[in-house]
Amino acid sequence: MRTIHVIGIGAGDPEQLTLQAVRVMRETQVFFLLDKGEEKADLSDLRLGMLSAHLPQDGSWRVVRSRDPERDRRAQGSAYSPAVDAWRARRADIFERLIREELDEDGTGAFLVWGDPALYDSTLGMLAEVGERGGVAFECTVVPGISSVSTLAARHRTGLNRVGGAVQVTTGRRLAEGLPEEAEDVVVMLDAHQRFLAYADREDLDIFWGAYLGTPDEVLVSGALREVAPRIVELRARERERKGWIMDTYLLRRRREG
Amino acid sequence: MRTIHVIGIGAGDPEQLTLQAVRVMRETQVFFLLDKGEEKADLSDLRLGMLSAHLPQDGSWRVVRSRDPERDRRAQGSAYSPAVDAWRARRADIFERLIREELDEDGTGAFLVWGDPALYDSTLGMLAEVGERGGVAFECTVVPGISSVSTLAARHRTGLNRVGGAVQVTTGRRLAEGLPEEAEDVVVMLDAHQRFLAYADREDLDIFWGAYLGTPDEVLVSGALREVAPRIVELRARERERKGWIMDTYLLRRRREG
Repeated sequence: MRTIHVIGIGAGDPEQLTLQAVRVMRETQVFFLLDKGEEKADLSDLRLGMLSAHLPQDGSWRVVRSRDPERDRRAQGSAYSPAVDAWRARRADIFERLIREELDEDGTGAFLVWGDPALYDSTLGMLAEVGERGGVAFECTVVPGISSVSTLAARHRTGLNRVGGAVQVTTGRRLAEGLPEEAEDVVVMLDAHQRFLAYADREDLDIFWGAYLGTPDEVLVSGALREVAPRIVELRARERERKGWIMDTYLLRRRREG
Repeated sequence: MRTIHVIGIGAGDPEQLTLQAVRVMRETQVFFLLDKGEEKADLSDLRLGMLSAHLPQDGSWRVVRSRDPERDRRAQGSAYSPAVDAWRARRADIFERLIREELDEDGTGAFLVWGDPALYDSTLGMLAEVGERGGVAFECTVVPGISSVSTLAARHRTGLNRVGGAVQVTTGRRLAEGLPEEAEDVVVMLDAHQRFLAYADREDLDIFWGAYLGTPDEVLVSGALREVAPRIVELRARERERKGWIMDTYLLRRRREG
């Protein structure tokens, strides 16, 4: 049977690879690289660099590049869900074709996933969908990776939770609907619209923000949200302009009383 | 100035060490091992094994073992908070003494932390407290690690969040107060009392449970909570009896409608 490894490769720093990730990479014949568009070429190069750094140069492995289909981001309201479904189906088609056509019947392929495959990554969901379709049989293993969330906390030398507290990991879209009440600490991912600004007049919030975490371009800001919010907005715009894309995440922390 | 590295070493599998963790371990002269009691001797051995596997046997590093003070777990209600404060102060005393007495003024020490130092670990809080006391100056760096949460998800080959959803990481104590409503996926840590049983009659919950994650003793159970809860209770009791201690965590997942 075919084997597919889903390998978490860390948030951007090649040193965040685990020993397990390196071993499993060395057991892989075909690496599937799905490019998300030209703006992320930096990230593709980083992954290729990891492969050349850790794998033998003996022709025992190869890279298959494919274009990740773009989602129709104009779809809103009642069109949103069908647009996402159609996009998922197109992606599942690509995954299925890659696994069936690029691997021998007992071949081993791998997807290299930024961060941790368990957090806001669609690879496992895609593979589950391909599995349910029944068009090609394969086994799947997952190698956990260092997420951008862990990296954010480490670079700010802080925990994600306070003693006895809870932490919620959520999206910018959800944060726009309200600040979670059940967790004192809230990590926000996939926020292209700086939704923290909706809470920038509150006096009980600190923010720990980071962009390009784990890479040489890393930028960090922390402090009282109302004080540092303008600086984050400015930095975010400048860096995005300079590099052509930005990946950032942040922790919003409610101050405890007393 | 003294340097203290707080190194996440993964959930139990020595292969979960990152390349960064190995490099930073090799730059360290003194490793502080705080033992939590005899029942966790297995875990101390695992850490010593990692050091011997990755560090030169040339006398350039040493291990300082210390006993982590026990918290008075009988304290309840109004006595709970003072008991925790007293325990924290005793621990901070130990951390401060270790840093001051076991390291040269420009020496480098490290704490090896199970999982990720950012999640339900007190080392960073202790070091912040020692820093605030001002008795000894040091710089601190954090190496993120693979958490038991990431490992749980990887072993079950599932994500922590669903598409567009949120995930809350919380404690058994908090789960006893109610199932979080703001996140469809809830990871529970530090639950010695199987608090999931309070929700075992609900039909909309799945559970992904794991104990001794990443170790040869690993046990996994997943399924509809109402169906598998009794098996988890039984397994947990049996394994705890057999090994003398247990470390487990689980993900509770609300089913989406439709």
